[in-house]
Amino acid sequence: MTDTPGSAPVGSNWDRWGADDERGAANLLTPEAVLGAVGAVREGRLISLGMPIRGSTSGPGRASVPHLPGRPLPQHFMSVDGADYTAGARMLNGSIGVADDALMLSHHGTTTHMDALCHMWRGDRLYNGHSAARVRSYGATRCGIEKAGPLVARGVLFDVAAHLGVPYLDESVRIGADVLEDIVKSHGVELRPGDVALVRTGWPTVYAADRVRYQGGQPGLDHSGGRWLADHDVTAVACDNAAVGALAMDGSFDAGPDEDLHLLLLWSRGVYLLEMLWLEDLAATGRHDFLFVAAPLAIEGGTGSAVNPVAVL
Amino acid sequence: MTDTPGSAPVGSNWDRWGADDERGAANLLTPEAVLGAVGAVREGRLISLGMPIRGSTSGPGRASVPHLPGRPLPQHFMSVDGADYTAGARMLNGSIGVADDALMLSHHGTTTHMDALCHMWRGDRLYNGHSAARVRSYGATRCGIEKAGPLVARGVLFDVAAHLGVPYLDESVRIGADVLEDIVKSHGVELRPGDVALVRTGWPTVYAADRVRYQGGQPGLDHSGGRWLADHDVTAVACDNAAVGALAMDGSFDAGPDEDLHLLLLWSRGVYLLEMLWLEDLAATGRHDFLFVAAPLAIEGGTGSAVNPVAVL
Amino acid sequence: MTDTPGSAPVGSNWDRWGADDERGAANLLTPEAVLGAVGAVREGRLISLGMPIRGSTSGPGRASVPHLPGRPLPQHFMSVDGADYTAGARMLNGSIGVADDALMLSHHGTTTHMDALCHMWRGDRLYNGHSAARVRSYGATRCGIEKAGPLVARGVLFDVAAHLGVPYLDESVRIGADVLEDIVKSHGVELRPGDVALVRTGWPTVYAADRVRYQGGQPGLDHSGGRWLADHDVTAVACDNAAVGALAMDGSFDAGPDEDLHLLLLWSRGVYLLEMLWLEDLAATGRHDFLFVAAPLAIEGGTGSAVNPVAVL
Amino acid sequence: MTDTPGSAPVGSNWDRWGADDERGAANLLTPEAVLGAVGAVREGRLISLGMPIRGSTSGPGRASVPHLPGRPLPQHFMSVDGADYTAGARMLNGSIGVADDALMLSHHGTTTHMDALCHMWRGDRLYNGHSAARVRSYGATRCGIEKAGPLVARGVLFDVAAHLGVPYLDESVRIGADVLEDIVKSHGVELRPGDVALVRTGWPTVYAADRVRYQGGQPGLDHSGGRWLADHDVTAVACDNAAVGALAMDGSFDAGPDEDLHLLLLWSRGVYLLEMLWLEDLAATGRHDFLFVAAPLAIEGGTGSAVNPVAVL
Repeated sequence: MTDTPGSAPVGSNWDRWGADDERGAANLLTPEAVLGAVGAVREGRLISLGMPIRGSTSGPGRASVPHLPGRPLPQHFMSVDGADYTAGARMLNGSIGVADDALMLSHHGTTTHMDALCHMWRGDRLYNGHSAARVRSYGATRCGIEKAGPLVARGVLFDVAAHLGVPYLDESVRIGADVLEDIVKSHGVELRPGDVALVRTGWPTVYAADRVRYQGGQPGLDHSGGRWLADHDVTAVACDNAAVGALAMDGSFDAGPDEDLHLLLLWSRGVYLLEMLWLEDLAATGRHDFLFVAAPLAIEGGTGSAVNPVAVL
Repeated sequence: MTDTPGSAPVGSNWDRWGADDERGAANLLTPEAVLGAVGAVREGRLISLGMPIRGSTSGPGRASVPHLPGRPLPQHFMSVDGADYTAGARMLNGSIGVADDALMLSHHGTTTHMDALCHMWRGDRLYNGHSAARVRSYGATRCGIEKAGPLVARGVLFDVAAHLGVPYLDESVRIGADVLEDIVKSHGVELRPGDVALVRTGWPTVYAADRVRYQGGQPGLDHSGGRWLADHDVTAVACDNAAVGALAMDGSFDAGPDEDLHLLLLWSRGVYLLEMLWLEDLAATGRHDFLFVAAPLAIEGGTGSAVNPVAVL
Repeated sequence: MTDTPGSAPVGSNWDRWGADDERGAANLLTPEAVLGAVGAVREGRLISLGMPIRGSTSGPGRASVPHLPGRPLPQHFMSVDGADYTAGARMLNGSIGVADDALMLSHHGTTTHMDALCHMWRGDRLYNGHSAARVRSYGATRCGIEKAGPLVARGVLFDVAAHLGVPYLDESVRIGADVLEDIVKSHGVELRPGDVALVRTGWPTVYAADRVRYQGGQPGLDHSGGRWLADHDVTAVACDNAAVGALAMDGSFDAGPDEDLHLLLLWSRGVYLLEMLWLEDLAATGRHDFLFVAAPLAIEGGTGSAVNPVAVL
Repeated sequence: MTDTPGSAPVGSNWDRWGADDERGAANLLTPEAVLGAVGAVREGRLISLGMPIRGSTSGPGRASVPHLPGRPLPQHFMSVDGADYTAGARMLNGSIGVADDALMLSHHGTTTHMDALCHMWRGDRLYNGHSAARVRSYGATRCGIEKAGPLVARGVLFDVAAHLGVPYLDESVRIGADVLEDIVKSHGVELRPGDVALVRTGWPTVYAADRVRYQGGQPGLDHSGGRWLADHDVTAVACDNAAVGALAMDGSFDAGPDEDLHLLLLWSRGVYLLEMLWLEDLAATGRHDFLFVAAPLAIEGGTGSAVNPVAVL
C-alpha cells in the first residue's frame, strides 16, 4: 500500500495563517503542547542549531560550509560598507556610516532550512489534496511555507551516533524504527504528540575532513523510522543530514516513491522536515528534551525557508 | 555629550559565537534571564510578529506589503514548480514532483528584520571599538549578524497607540521616556535586564489605506525614550515602524547624530534593533509580557537578517 | 481576421543556432542582406543606442534611469573592490587588486533589451506553432533568446518626432503606416527586406523632466504602422519607447489582442522587438541608414536579453 | 622594469562616454579604423563567438558549460511562463500569454565577457592613474565598463592550435611573440592599430570531454606575446581561454605581477580583454580577418560585462 496525500489534523491556535488543511502537523501545536514544551526548559541555556550562511563570491572568506553538489550556493553582497567610507565615500550627516547588504539564497541543499508542504508530492496532488498546478512560477498558492507558522515545540533528540558509539554514522547506515525505539527506552524520554524529533547522524562533521565523501552517500532514516515518528504524531522531523532520508552513493534519494521519506512525512502526513541542522553542540550537552523553536520566514508561496533553530535547555 | 561606541556587558551562555565584544546586549541573555523569560508563558498561545515576504516580480499576486520607498523589494523565484509538471516536465522516478525556489532579499526597509551591530556607526569605529574598515564587500569580519545568536528573552509590549487611545500614532508623534514610564505604571509590568522591549505605533496599518502616507514621515521613539530603554538594560528594541526612531516627512532620520536612535542603541549600547514587526495580533491579546524568540539567520558578515519573531503567551 | 502564429521565412546563414522555425525574421539576415547592411557604412562613426544599467541599491549614485513602474530594477553588487584594499584587504601576490561584481537583471521594462520569440503569444501556441507549455520555470525550450543570434543588419531610422517637428511625441500620438510612408518619401531611403526599423518618439527624454509622466501613457506604433513594417519584411523593430506599441494612460497596452503590436510582430511574423533604446544621439547625426548591430546574450531559454545596440554610420 | 599604469591614446569618436583617460585603447577606434574594419567584410556571413549562458538551478537542462571552479554560476529564473498558463494562470486580456524572467550573473570565469579597465590593477592606482579607492561597493566611478563603449573593429584571428597542428593546445603551452609573428607571416595578414586580436587555444573543447582537466591549468599567452600585441596597438585581445594569460595547474595565474597579462594589457596599456570566447566555428571558416563587434552592456561602474561577440566575414 502506498502513501496517500494526508488530511489535516484538527485543532489549531493560529488565526492568522492559512486554513488548517495547509498547515499539516503544525496544527498539533495546541496550547497544551506548547505549555508542555516550555516545561522542558530547566537550565536556561541556549543552543543554536543552524549552520552559518556564507557567501560564495570573491574574498578571503570564501571557504565553504556543508552543502549538496550542484546547488547554487548562497550569495551575499554589501551594497555599501565600511571600506567604502575608508576609501572616501561621504558619510551620512557628515559622520554616520551605514552598511547594507543583500542575500541570494536557494535553501534546499545549501543551508539549515525547513521544507514547506508544497516542496514535494506524488502524482498531481499536494498534501491534503490541493492541486499541484497551484505551485507556479510566482509561488505556491497552496501549502507555501508562510502557512506553516513558527514551530514552538518540545524537542526530543535522537542521538543515533552516540547511541551506536560512533562520532558519525557511516553513509551506509539506515535508521529504522527499532533504533529509535531503543533510544527512547535507554533515555526514558517519551515522544509526545506535537514534539519535534531531532535525529543526529553526525554527518556534517565529515565535511571538514572530506568534502567529496560528504557529497556522496549519506546516512539517514529509513521508511520504518519515518513511519514510527509519524505514528507518534510529531510536528516535525529535524535532521543533520541533507534529506532526512538517506542518500545513495550517487547523491540521489535512496528509496523509491513507496518508501520515500519526503513523501511519507511531508506529503502524506503533513509532518514538516528540517534539514542540515548542526546538532553537535546540542549533543554535547547530554540533554534529550528541551524547548525547540524554529520560525521560517513567511515567504509567500515559498517551498521552504532558511531557519536558525534554537534549543532552550 | 555625544554617545560613544559601547563596551560589551559581561557574562554569556554562548560558546559558539564570536567574542563577547561582538555580541552586545545579547550577553544579557543569561540562563537566569532565559528562565525568567520562559516563566512568562502562561497560555501556550503563539503569535507571529513577522510580516510576509512577497516577491515583487510578475504574476497575479504582486501587490505589495509595507516597505520604504527606493528599496529593492524581495524577489522570489521558482526554479521548478507544479505548473512545469502540468505542462509536461518529467517527474522524478516517474511520479514525484519537486518544487524549488530562490529568494533575493535586501532586508533593511523591506521586511521584518533584525540589525547587526555592524549596521551603523559614527566616525570610524563600530560598536566596542572595532574598526569600521573591517566591514567590507565580502561581509563584516566584526559584529556581523552571525555573532548575535538567537534572542530568547522576555518580551514586554509598550502599546503606545492603545495607551493613547488611537488605532495608530500620527506621523508627528515622538515617543519619549515619560510615555514609556506611564505605560509601565499603568500595566504594572516592570522591564527587567535582558528583556526585549516591543514598541507598537500601529503605523503598518496605514499602508493598506494610504501607501504614500506610509512612506513619508513615521512616528517613533525619540532620544529620551531610547535612552530610557537602554538604561533598563534591554537586549533589544523591536518596533513596528521602519527605523525604531521616527522618520521626518521626507523619509530621512528625524534626529541628528547626537540624538539618533541607531547610534544610541545599536552602536553605543549594543542593543539590538528589530524593525517592521507586525504587532497588531499581539496587541489584540491584551498581554504585556511573554516569551519572545527571534533567531536571525547566521549570515556571516551580514548587516542584519530577516526574522519571523514569535511571542509565546 | 486576427493574426495567427507565423511561419519561419526560409534561408539562413546560421548553422549553430536552433531550427529556422525558432529564429523568426532573423532568417532574413542572408549574406546578401548583411553585405548590403555593411554597405551603409560611410563615415566610420559609432553611435551607441543603449541606456545605462544602474544598480538600484544603496550609495550616492542611485538616482535612476527610465523604467516602467513596478518592475524590479537592476541590482549591481561588487563582491570585492578597490575600497576593500584601501581598508586593508590583502592584495593578490602582495600588490595586485582585483574588482569583481554581479548583476541581477529583469530586462523587460527596465533597460534597453531585445525580446525573444517566446516572450508573448496568444492562446496556447508560440510563434510558428510551438507549444507554449514548453516555456517553463527552467527556461523556454522553444524560441528562447539564444535562438535569435546576433542581429547585423541595415538600420533605417524613422525619426517621427523630428518629422513632426517636436522634441518628443505627446503620449497620445499613435504612429500609423501613413507617417512611416511619409518619412520614407521625404528621406528617399527605402526599407529593404532584412532591415531593422528604428522608430524614434523621443519619449525617454521626458523621464529626466517628469518621471511620473514618463511612467503613464506613452506614444508608439499603432497596428497599421506595425503591419506596414512587417509587410516590408524587417528583421526587427527597435523603438525608444517601452513597448513598441503605445501605452494607455494607466500604463497598460493600448490595444486589444487583435491590434496588439507584440502579437502582430513578434508572435505572428517572427519580427524581433527591441525596446527602450536611446536614439537621441543617433537622431542628432541626421543619418537615416547605417549598419545596425545588436547581439543578445545567448541566455538559454531566456525571454529576452539586455543589449547595447550600436549604429555604425 | 615593471609596467606602470598607462596613459590614454589620443583621438576618439565618442562624445557620449567618459573622458578619454577612462576609455583606454578604445580610443583607437577612429573613423578610419572603423572603415578599415568594415572593409574586411567580404562574404556577409555571421559567426557568433559567445558561449551560451545556462541557468544553474533545478530542471532537466542543468548540465553545465565551461567555467572556472568556485565561481557562482549564472542563475536564470522565469517569473511567469507558459507552464503557469497551462496550469490555469489567468491570461492577459483573456488570451495573451507573457513570459518574463530574471538573470543573476557574475561574468568573470563563468561566460564570454569583456573586462573593464577597473577590473585589475597594481598598487593603489587604476589605469591612467585613477585612484583605486574609487572602485567601491556601489560600482567604480572611474574606468567602469560603461566607459568602454561598443567595440567595432577589424578582427584578426591567431589560430594557434591550427598553426601547431593540434585540436587544442596542451595546458603547458605558453604563446609567445614568436608564434604570433609566425602566424602573421604564414597568413600574410598584418595586424593594424585598432584591431582586435583573437587568440584560439581550442581549450573550451576540453570541457565536454574532461571537466576536471578544463578547470586545472590552461594554455595562454605569455608576457612576450602580450607585449607584442600591445606594441601593435590593438584595441583588445580576445581569447577562448579563461584569463588571456595561462593558468598554472592549480588554477592560479601562471605569471607573477611583473609578467601578468592583465596588468600588462588592461592596466598598463588600456587594452581591453575578452575571455572565454567560442572560436571553433570561426576557426572552421579559415578566415583570418573580418569585422568584429562586441558591445558590452553599459553597467555603470561594472568590472565587466557578458558579451556575445560577432564576426562578420
